[in-house]
Amino acid sequence: MLIVGEKINVISKTIGPAVKERDSKPIQELARAQVEAGANLLEVNIGPATKGGPEMMEWLVKTVQEVVDVPLSIDTTNPEATEAGLKVHKGQALINSASGDPERLHTMMSLAQKYKAKIIGLTLTEKGIPRDASERCIIAADILQAAMEYGIPMEDLYLDPLLLPIAVAQEQAVQGLEAIAMFKQLNDPAPQTIVGLSNICNGAPKEIHSVLNTTYLVMLINCGLDAAIADALDENLMNAVKTVAVFKNEVLYCHSYLE
Amino acid sequence: MLIVGEKINVISKTIGPAVKERDSKPIQELARAQVEAGANLLEVNIGPATKGGPEMMEWLVKTVQEVVDVPLSIDTTNPEATEAGLKVHKGQALINSASGDPERLHTMMSLAQKYKAKIIGLTLTEKGIPRDASERCIIAADILQAAMEYGIPMEDLYLDPLLLPIAVAQEQAVQGLEAIAMFKQLNDPAPQTIVGLSNICNGAPKEIHSVLNTTYLVMLINCGLDAAIADALDENLMNAVKTVAVFKNEVLYCHSYLE
Repeated sequence: MLIVGEKINVISKTIGPAVKERDSKPIQELARAQVEAGANLLEVNIGPATKGGPEMMEWLVKTVQEVVDVPLSIDTTNPEATEAGLKVHKGQALINSASGDPERLHTMMSLAQKYKAKIIGLTLTEKGIPRDASERCIIAADILQAAMEYGIPMEDLYLDPLLLPIAVAQEQAVQGLEAIAMFKQLNDPAPQTIVGLSNICNGAPKEIHSVLNTTYLVMLINCGLDAAIADALDENLMNAVKTVAVFKNEVLYCHSYLE
Repeated sequence: MLIVGEKINVISKTIGPAVKERDSKPIQELARAQVEAGANLLEVNIGPATKGGPEMMEWLVKTVQEVVDVPLSIDTTNPEATEAGLKVHKGQALINSASGDPERLHTMMSLAQKYKAKIIGLTLTEKGIPRDASERCIIAADILQAAMEYGIPMEDLYLDPLLLPIAVAQEQAVQGLEAIAMFKQLNDPAPQTIVGLSNICNGAPKEIHSVLNTTYLVMLINCGLDAAIADALDENLMNAVKTVAVFKNEVLYCHSYLE
């Protein structure tokens, strides 16, 4: 189970201005804190980045990898900025993301091919958000086929069912769980699966974010989830991830396994 | 999902002496506290109860049901004490437990039939503890057949895979999860499933009991678990149970669903 630390995102009140002013300190502190908390990768999200996107992503990737030795999830809707990040990235990057939109799908897959990157395939098209697990699987099958055409191995393709907030689309939580189980059946060898976990608690009160995220993550892992973009600074969440690994017999139990 | 509060047990340092001295106060306090915390049933466990068992169980059932209006899980290895409890129990009791041991199986099933009680079938025989989920299913099938012979409806039969401590039998945790999923496939209509959850953390340090119990319970519910004998006073655990119900769309989400 991989945890992609979600915190380096320009929508954050501290990270947004820091990226704009090329102030590396708060960014590098947050990078270190997430990796110390157990994050296996770190998200670097600059959003649409229509103005100066490539320079911004290049700077951000370098700045983060200056202090932590983990791969980054390069997240922007601007493909030129994605490529600028990939060019300077050390190790195998994760592209966040391709989708079922044909143009974006092929642009991003060709970048994954060119830079031998891992890639997230978000099961969403230009026509909107899928209604259930089956609709997610139809889009996933298109993404999977494109990945094969571009020679992306299944171990590098991460299908993402696109979680929706429990507070506005409660019935979708069951669909998210089913989608993960179904994605794992789409091919042999199976593709990887990932979620943007914190979507689930968008709009819910802060004090219940941890119990929502943690509980749903355990259910998702039990359905076959391989990775989550999540709050690595949430100790409850990270403890649950370690505990699931013990119950799945992937990590040896000892009394101090949480330490 | 039903939670059977586990706390009224003669092995407890406060409950043991209270039962012996027929001191109702600590018992009734603990009964009230568990029901207020959300327990749907309460366990009353007097162990082997070889001496004066029937009188003890009769007193205990009456004492607990004097203050709380929930069914009890009547737990003792002495069948005469079980029957004494059933005689005075208000509502539909839960017998804890039959097993794959032929003599005990038929004694307990006949009591369940006579008193129209629910019954737990522990997948264990006089020959020892099963090695994996498949062995548990073989015993479960015997219990299921006996239940049918005695006219116990599937909604009243709770199969229990017998959880073992993670600290001494780590590889059994996966078997417990698989057993729950397999039990639900044994018959149509499916039998109910239950675990004695706290077995999993026996021997583990106190400070990790909650994360072990809570994480494993969420995994078990995701595999089809219907009920757990558990620590209803563990707020993390009870919050996770409520949260799973929200994600399964069984309870309507609202911002204050934990309150």
